[in-house]
Amino acid sequence: MSAMGGLSAFDRATEVRPVDVVGEGRYAVTLDDAWCIGSGRPNGGYLLAVLGRAALAAGAAAGATQDHVIAAAVQYATPPTTGPATVVTEVFRVGRTASQVRASLVQDGRTSVDASFTLGHLADGAGTWWGATEPVALPDEADCIALPPPPGTEGVPATLRGSITVRFDPAPLGGLDGEPDGSGELRAWFRFPDGRDVDPLALLLVVDALPPATFAIVNTGWVPTLALSAYIRAVPAPGPLRIRFRVQVIEDGLVDEVCEVWDSRDRLVAQSTQLGAIRIPATSAG
Amino acid sequence: MSAMGGLSAFDRATEVRPVDVVGEGRYAVTLDDAWCIGSGRPNGGYLLAVLGRAALAAGAAAGATQDHVIAAAVQYATPPTTGPATVVTEVFRVGRTASQVRASLVQDGRTSVDASFTLGHLADGAGTWWGATEPVALPDEADCIALPPPPGTEGVPATLRGSITVRFDPAPLGGLDGEPDGSGELRAWFRFPDGRDVDPLALLLVVDALPPATFAIVNTGWVPTLALSAYIRAVPAPGPLRIRFRVQVIEDGLVDEVCEVWDSRDRLVAQSTQLGAIRIPATSAG
Repeated sequence: MSAMGGLSAFDRATEVRPVDVVGEGRYAVTLDDAWCIGSGRPNGGYLLAVLGRAALAAGAAAGATQDHVIAAAVQYATPPTTGPATVVTEVFRVGRTASQVRASLVQDGRTSVDASFTLGHLADGAGTWWGATEPVALPDEADCIALPPPPGTEGVPATLRGSITVRFDPAPLGGLDGEPDGSGELRAWFRFPDGRDVDPLALLLVVDALPPATFAIVNTGWVPTLALSAYIRAVPAPGPLRIRFRVQVIEDGLVDEVCEVWDSRDRLVAQSTQLGAIRIPATSAG
Repeated sequence: MSAMGGLSAFDRATEVRPVDVVGEGRYAVTLDDAWCIGSGRPNGGYLLAVLGRAALAAGAAAGATQDHVIAAAVQYATPPTTGPATVVTEVFRVGRTASQVRASLVQDGRTSVDASFTLGHLADGAGTWWGATEPVALPDEADCIALPPPPGTEGVPATLRGSITVRFDPAPLGGLDGEPDGSGELRAWFRFPDGRDVDPLALLLVVDALPPATFAIVNTGWVPTLALSAYIRAVPAPGPLRIRFRVQVIEDGLVDEVCEVWDSRDRLVAQSTQLGAIRIPATSAG
């Protein structure tokens, strides 16, 4: 919910409505124009949140008592267009502590995004038992910067930029118009501009909300995600989140990136890995 | 193929046979008794390799030219039994550089394992462009140890132990009958006892072939995997592989673990993350 009462922009944009087809677990969604990247296509994290919301609805309809997505894995086959789409769900297992659901986004009879979800319950008061991670070090939010639109996307507004507030540590990018520092690591603050708290569902957006971390190594075209998996580990405390998004290995036209998200209590609330396709300019040295 | 000619044990155990049902992409498999863990159920990595082989067959049948699984994500809903099963596949996308396929394991009309695969081609001569990782440091293979069967599994032979050769750095486990060292990291050498080279398909087994890395922190019961994702990055050179399997965070009954695999040329050939359910004994301190 937004601080203003009523549905926040994120909640409106990820709404799912059951379709009255008995026994098929289908949900109608409207992919919102306000969550697009520079290609004019919906952001991948936004799509994952839409599918996650449908998976939670399908789980509940099948008797699952879990209220959070705790793990998600998604494959992006083709970029869907904004507007109406159907989410087709299948509940594999309703368990006592975890349930498992698959959800696919279908437009014109074609599956564009396919995801699977593990549902669980994240206890509000749970603490880390082993392996606490230090939050990423970031300058104050006020000293971080909004990125300019990527080159070549001037004609296609990246509307996502108006729906989320992401402020970057300028260092890895060499400031607003500098050269990447070669670190392969982006660091940023995240919040919703309308004051909506980030809940576990919205973390599915957060783990894929940043530009490719390869932008802190080499200026390339967009790096399309082939597959992404995310674990949601805790209910975030109110306040802005800190994100670290870093490249591990670039090889043979593929790159894997790791994302970690901490809340205002310094708790690790989400982790993700993704594999993307990257085209290195011939003039760049590794 | 094994060094002896003919099909290796791994290849026989992961064989898939098309079922003659037009347009449905179904494959008959026989889950092999020789790839079970202490519960008497098939190992998760073995199941992923079976599904991956079916996904490659389904991709090829749909016109995909890619010969390797480069990304896999799997959810384990219920442990299948050994014996006959059906793999149901769905090809989402046949692309020029990548294709995407879903494959589910079905027994008695019930889906027990659901996975999605990205197919690609791993070039033999490709090198790392950025982010080379140092292989894990390990004692010589001869100074590493085979683990004894886990306590409480004496009546149910973990047949997987005969199908793969895994030798562990004894330090994290406190030797053969010691106390875990609290590091949360297992390190091991891997090879097939029949001399079969580890190819990209077999890496799907390798990334989930070790006991829980939590065994290097606390003695618990088994840690069932809820979800796992793997990236296969290179064709392994012949020779034994080195594996590092480490815990990141244990919290709220869940643990995430990261696995990395290097080949004899010191190249990172596979990466995976998994989320498991863990029950911490009440007497253990974090």
